[in-house]
Amino acid sequence: MGTRLGELVERLGGELAGDPNIEVTGIAPLADAGASHISFLSNSKLRAQAAQSGAAALILAPSDSETVGATYPGARIVTKNPYAYFARAAQYFEALTAFVPAAGVHPSAYVAGSARVDPSAHVGPNATVEEGASVGAGAVIGAGCFVGRDAVIGAETRLFANVTFHAGCQIGARGIIHSGAVIGTDGFGFANEGGVYIKIPQTGRVVIGDDVDIGANTTIDRGALADTIIEDGVKLDNQIQIGHNCHIGAHTAMAGCVGVAGSAKIGKYCTFGGAAMVLGHLTIADHVHISSGSMVSRSIAEAGQYTGFYPLAKNADWEKTAAIVRNLDTMRDKIRALEKTIKTLTEQK
Amino acid sequence: MGTRLGELVERLGGELAGDPNIEVTGIAPLADAGASHISFLSNSKLRAQAAQSGAAALILAPSDSETVGATYPGARIVTKNPYAYFARAAQYFEALTAFVPAAGVHPSAYVAGSARVDPSAHVGPNATVEEGASVGAGAVIGAGCFVGRDAVIGAETRLFANVTFHAGCQIGARGIIHSGAVIGTDGFGFANEGGVYIKIPQTGRVVIGDDVDIGANTTIDRGALADTIIEDGVKLDNQIQIGHNCHIGAHTAMAGCVGVAGSAKIGKYCTFGGAAMVLGHLTIADHVHISSGSMVSRSIAEAGQYTGFYPLAKNADWEKTAAIVRNLDTMRDKIRALEKTIKTLTEQK
Amino acid sequence: MGTRLGELVERLGGELAGDPNIEVTGIAPLADAGASHISFLSNSKLRAQAAQSGAAALILAPSDSETVGATYPGARIVTKNPYAYFARAAQYFEALTAFVPAAGVHPSAYVAGSARVDPSAHVGPNATVEEGASVGAGAVIGAGCFVGRDAVIGAETRLFANVTFHAGCQIGARGIIHSGAVIGTDGFGFANEGGVYIKIPQTGRVVIGDDVDIGANTTIDRGALADTIIEDGVKLDNQIQIGHNCHIGAHTAMAGCVGVAGSAKIGKYCTFGGAAMVLGHLTIADHVHISSGSMVSRSIAEAGQYTGFYPLAKNADWEKTAAIVRNLDTMRDKIRALEKTIKTLTEQK
Repeated sequence: MGTRLGELVERLGGELAGDPNIEVTGIAPLADAGASHISFLSNSKLRAQAAQSGAAALILAPSDSETVGATYPGARIVTKNPYAYFARAAQYFEALTAFVPAAGVHPSAYVAGSARVDPSAHVGPNATVEEGASVGAGAVIGAGCFVGRDAVIGAETRLFANVTFHAGCQIGARGIIHSGAVIGTDGFGFANEGGVYIKIPQTGRVVIGDDVDIGANTTIDRGALADTIIEDGVKLDNQIQIGHNCHIGAHTAMAGCVGVAGSAKIGKYCTFGGAAMVLGHLTIADHVHISSGSMVSRSIAEAGQYTGFYPLAKNADWEKTAAIVRNLDTMRDKIRALEKTIKTLTEQK
Repeated sequence: MGTRLGELVERLGGELAGDPNIEVTGIAPLADAGASHISFLSNSKLRAQAAQSGAAALILAPSDSETVGATYPGARIVTKNPYAYFARAAQYFEALTAFVPAAGVHPSAYVAGSARVDPSAHVGPNATVEEGASVGAGAVIGAGCFVGRDAVIGAETRLFANVTFHAGCQIGARGIIHSGAVIGTDGFGFANEGGVYIKIPQTGRVVIGDDVDIGANTTIDRGALADTIIEDGVKLDNQIQIGHNCHIGAHTAMAGCVGVAGSAKIGKYCTFGGAAMVLGHLTIADHVHISSGSMVSRSIAEAGQYTGFYPLAKNADWEKTAAIVRNLDTMRDKIRALEKTIKTLTEQK
Repeated sequence: MGTRLGELVERLGGELAGDPNIEVTGIAPLADAGASHISFLSNSKLRAQAAQSGAAALILAPSDSETVGATYPGARIVTKNPYAYFARAAQYFEALTAFVPAAGVHPSAYVAGSARVDPSAHVGPNATVEEGASVGAGAVIGAGCFVGRDAVIGAETRLFANVTFHAGCQIGARGIIHSGAVIGTDGFGFANEGGVYIKIPQTGRVVIGDDVDIGANTTIDRGALADTIIEDGVKLDNQIQIGHNCHIGAHTAMAGCVGVAGSAKIGKYCTFGGAAMVLGHLTIADHVHISSGSMVSRSIAEAGQYTGFYPLAKNADWEKTAAIVRNLDTMRDKIRALEKTIKTLTEQK
């Protein structure tokens, strides 16, 4: 299955230089692409490679089009953001062949009497949808999923197999929740009395906007009293932990293994590298970027890139530097002493 | 649904100053509380705010009662630990409205013939309870849970949906295991022969005390030969990993993403901040507190707070300091050289 | 149930010094072993303890055999690698008593019509096996597992309860996947357009070799276009995240909570301590060993041990050193100034 270049451009935009009747069947990297593939140039440094690509057509920026076109014989789709165009084209080709679960409830699933499952939605084998829950049009509830009482799954949102989505929580349209994710578990809230912990009931919800992706085995706690909020377009990778009452601004992305403690307020358009950690009750401004492995221990009011991890070294070298780090105050005192002595020496002159 | 203040104090203790017939329906923060709410003052700095609260009643400490009561017109519940009282009151109100799963086994669940499920327990849709397992009075086994052969689930313990509780493991009374948690998986034990790993069977169990909470997607390995032990009152947040043969003392609490390697012995009343890590075979004393993001690489014999993470900085500043950290030995050598030179200079005088 | 020493040696090799008709029923540590146990000496420092062990037989190295045998009255099994021999003997004893799930598909499981499940394989309660999937001879699909379309589970591979194994992915023979693991979830791939993320379809697979163990709640992303590859004999502990298009060389082992970002290429025979993190697109040579809690932020071409974590200290001491770390460039400048001043002083002489 494939498509004509003309049809692709009609759907996705861009300016076509070349024959609109060329048939293409998929996307491939510059080096691998053949006569039935489209490829893309998103980095001008690869112009020479692009010019020699065997692809039937190239997606590229206006600033690269003429130079590459001088030697490249294939068609060109010219667009301002070739990488975004590539993503949309790849989505288009994937949709041609992707398996789409059939509408309806699998006989081995359990859907409670008062749950509303849209007739166009799919509920997979051995899934459970509790009383009062609502599953929107075109939504997919994968095998073994649990959708709790009064939970709301928006239209065209997909829960892959074995997702747990707890009572009263909500997700908007076109979301994706990957397998093993747990949404709406109790937050970690206790009062301490003589060393013994007394549980504080967690009665808030998790409220998730549209176009949110949540990775495999990621966990998002429900709010203690108010809700945990995940705004539109947020992208969370696998194994992330979001504490209760966090608020994550729109279009913020977090890589795998990130942890965010309770009541942190994170801005829009932020990025967090893998295994970054954020302490509780902090406020992070919009457009803040945290490097992988960094511990965010204070609020950040200014956009920019922040980092904090110990540099890797051969173990023997680390042993040396770590021993010095442990005693940096001694080193500082020695420098102070030297400064004093030298001051005295200089004055004696 | 609500309750009279007099009835609340009868159940939970504390001294009531005010009308016992006032009806209250729930708890709210000082700023939001209205005429049907109780609120609480657990931090004396908020006395002024408390005095102006619209709450029908305030939970507060003896030391705050008079000052606040001078202007606050509502009722007061006076108690030594207002935050703990708040937690208990919140539990009380939650119980009035919380959904309680009905006793009995859901028709879509599989319970093996020799498993003993107390008639007052609940086994949810698509759950599996294997041969010889035992589920105590009032216990709840959520949808999609797996309870392995001969496992023991104590009275009033709740497994939320999609928990895996492996063969032979035990948990006591009033515990909570959140969704996606895996209890009793094999520990990571291998012998190495010429670079190839040979699995060492993990034949111990996980034995968990009473009143233990285990967070979503947390994993606890079974012991290699002896058992992994989690004592009474331990509270584990989400995404925690506990290795085989660990022993965690009573009333210790760990925040999300903590990892504890095998055979670590951790004391009572400890706390671990998020993403703290503990190496294997270490011993940690009682009342040790580990800050978030800290790597515990040696045993700790003395109670107290311990920390070890690289401070966050703007990326450009981090680049500078990290480069110096990598070469701290050079800096140390320079200081030594300076000290020598100065000594010579001074002696020459 | 037990076995004769002679039979054990016949199966597992080694040289027996002693009566082959002694019956043994299991393995125990040196200190605990009684007259029906075998024990083992893998560390020569424990020779004295071994010599006094109550075990019926000892597994030990040729270099220890004579010394220990001089006083120890029991039988000896002499072998080059006693710890590996112990592992194999423990496997042997475990197999005598271990529960083996019966061949066949549990009535509460759903197996699609075109899936091929070997008659000797087991599919547990409430499990789902989708169209076109293949489950090999002697394989075990635990309760609540999901095996996606066209996935391939090799012979004698075991999926414990609640594993998710996505469409098109493959695992070879004799593998173990622990509960809650998710194999073949989408990688974290997006193009950004004006701050908004556009999903790049993840159409590669996860391809896993023979004898691979994957821990509880570990996640492995499918490739974006090409595959994610896990070679033979790799051992992954719990809560590990492996990004899309990673390639992990044979017999590499990773402890719990490790994260590997996308497209990292890791060599053979490597080890990663708990919570170590690897950035994307790096290349790590064979026989590289990364210490726990270390962030690998650059490729490593040379075998050896590498470390990078901030040393733990009492919190007050950490506060001091961390403040200095933040301003190490000031310290460096002071040293430079001192060097200059001293140079001047010296030259003035």
